[in-house]
Amino acid sequence: MLGAVLHKAGDIRCEQVDDPKILKPTDAIIKLSASCICGSDLWPYRGLQPLGEPTHMGHEYCGVVVEVGSEVRTIRPGQFVVGSFCLSDNTCPHCRYGFQSSCVQREFMLGAQAPYARVPLADGTLVATEEMPSDDLVPHMLAVSDVLGTGWYAADAAQVKPGSTVVVVGDGAVGLMGVLAAREMGAGRIIAMSRHETRQKLAREFGATDIVSERAEEGVRRILDMTDGVGADSVLECVGTMESMDQALAVSRPGGTIGYVGVPHDVSFEGQRLFFGQRRMLGGPAPVRRFLPDLMDRVLKGLIQPGKVFDLELPLAQVAEGYKAMDERRAVKVMLRV
Amino acid sequence: MLGAVLHKAGDIRCEQVDDPKILKPTDAIIKLSASCICGSDLWPYRGLQPLGEPTHMGHEYCGVVVEVGSEVRTIRPGQFVVGSFCLSDNTCPHCRYGFQSSCVQREFMLGAQAPYARVPLADGTLVATEEMPSDDLVPHMLAVSDVLGTGWYAADAAQVKPGSTVVVVGDGAVGLMGVLAAREMGAGRIIAMSRHETRQKLAREFGATDIVSERAEEGVRRILDMTDGVGADSVLECVGTMESMDQALAVSRPGGTIGYVGVPHDVSFEGQRLFFGQRRMLGGPAPVRRFLPDLMDRVLKGLIQPGKVFDLELPLAQVAEGYKAMDERRAVKVMLRV
Repeated sequence: MLGAVLHKAGDIRCEQVDDPKILKPTDAIIKLSASCICGSDLWPYRGLQPLGEPTHMGHEYCGVVVEVGSEVRTIRPGQFVVGSFCLSDNTCPHCRYGFQSSCVQREFMLGAQAPYARVPLADGTLVATEEMPSDDLVPHMLAVSDVLGTGWYAADAAQVKPGSTVVVVGDGAVGLMGVLAAREMGAGRIIAMSRHETRQKLAREFGATDIVSERAEEGVRRILDMTDGVGADSVLECVGTMESMDQALAVSRPGGTIGYVGVPHDVSFEGQRLFFGQRRMLGGPAPVRRFLPDLMDRVLKGLIQPGKVFDLELPLAQVAEGYKAMDERRAVKVMLRV
Repeated sequence: MLGAVLHKAGDIRCEQVDDPKILKPTDAIIKLSASCICGSDLWPYRGLQPLGEPTHMGHEYCGVVVEVGSEVRTIRPGQFVVGSFCLSDNTCPHCRYGFQSSCVQREFMLGAQAPYARVPLADGTLVATEEMPSDDLVPHMLAVSDVLGTGWYAADAAQVKPGSTVVVVGDGAVGLMGVLAAREMGAGRIIAMSRHETRQKLAREFGATDIVSERAEEGVRRILDMTDGVGADSVLECVGTMESMDQALAVSRPGGTIGYVGVPHDVSFEGQRLFFGQRRMLGGPAPVRRFLPDLMDRVLKGLIQPGKVFDLELPLAQVAEGYKAMDERRAVKVMLRV
């Protein structure tokens, strides 16, 4: 089959790869209904994260099960499934505490920018629907797999509550999903930090009540002005740079909470600053598995349309253009027809 | 009057100081029932924290109000009061959220190692009892002012819940109070890390169910063994060094929470480590004011005896011996008769 392979920074190709096979008795093979490109795929694409050998990319997926290993019990061929980008057994203590992204058997999904993919730990990772969802729901289901799940975790980790004042740092796809999550959790005010008109529009559509287009000190000043000098109850940090983390720390109030889901690159925290700032912090790879049943249910009921975050759709053959469009911020998030 | 003045590292003297006076209409003057030496006093005493000019030390206090400024409304002469080491108006937004230690008018108490002291922001800072407590309650009331309040905050920030598995890093007075707090909050298992027999005994008295005397990697291994490889739900970091913070990070489980109350000295956190570790963290100077009414009530009802943490009592004139005893870890915490 054809799959998207990153050879080196800037060099992503749609080329022949091996068909996925059951390698362990707990694996499943799925036929993807669609695939997509993640903001985190851009780190190695931009050369900001080391890449060893050529890598078959893609970790967001939904589709139909075509084969399962001999030990798979709850998932069966023919089912429509969504899984997390973090593969987990969903039975270990960390999973039972709701932190499946720290599962003792954790692996990260790979090779989902392709028509078929192998999903390890199928019973623990995949959640099946009762019926086959209609085609128009596929983008929304696909979004649940990572981008919505991650934005949701940012809001959950940031302890968004009904009536909360929320700031979302980062207007990428995850930040926009953080806006949607905050709205669903009943936030009273959702301030999206965004300089780009198309993203501002999307943010408003997903539930932002205010937009701050300034950055750095000026952005901080504006948000403090808007909150009577207090700062936000909850801040969703959805970028992963020192600059965005500084922003998040500066706009939250003492006792407020920062949920950070952008993989930190060259980020460090000075102890006394965190101490005297008194910000509660929780981050990490999102335990999407915890949220999957609820989020899939919301999609099936038509309560949320996270798939609106895909603003460019391309065939897998044009994956290079997809990466380029996201790298140049011409597209928020690219869906791939596989 | 006489007061304890730190001239330079290692040089603390009981000497003549000015009597405290009402400087602002929101001040009160109290006659201290007793004073004490804090673990944090040892940082400048050990030369590990810069000290400008000679400083009148002491920030833990309880006693009887002798005078109030013209704008003080709720506190009056003759009342027995306890206050926090953080002075706060208790009306600003941060105070109302329960983070009085980040009050917009925050000051830190000074000069309480003396028979009399000035307490700024008296209405916001001080909590009065209805009646004059008996003398035997004074050590317990004094402990509430900082050491218990700080240990309590560590447990609160670490989200100790009924049945939780808790690790306390640090067997100083604050750590021991953290043990007591965790017990009061219903923790199922309280593992105190302590190498010193007398402190181990106190820890058990305050509620520790297990003692781990190993440190560093070996200490981590033991705690992971004791928790079936999972780690603790809540960790109270009560020291403030990189070593103790490493310990706290290593023995908590993903999704677990670290409450850190030791002022960090040369501590920094690498972003990806915090991210992939998925530890929830909250630290800072304790908002003792939030807990004062509850903790004073527990003392008055005889439910807790935090004053047992004082294992050496000296007259103020011997303050130098008190600092020395704590510095050499011959004493856990020194009470000063004033």
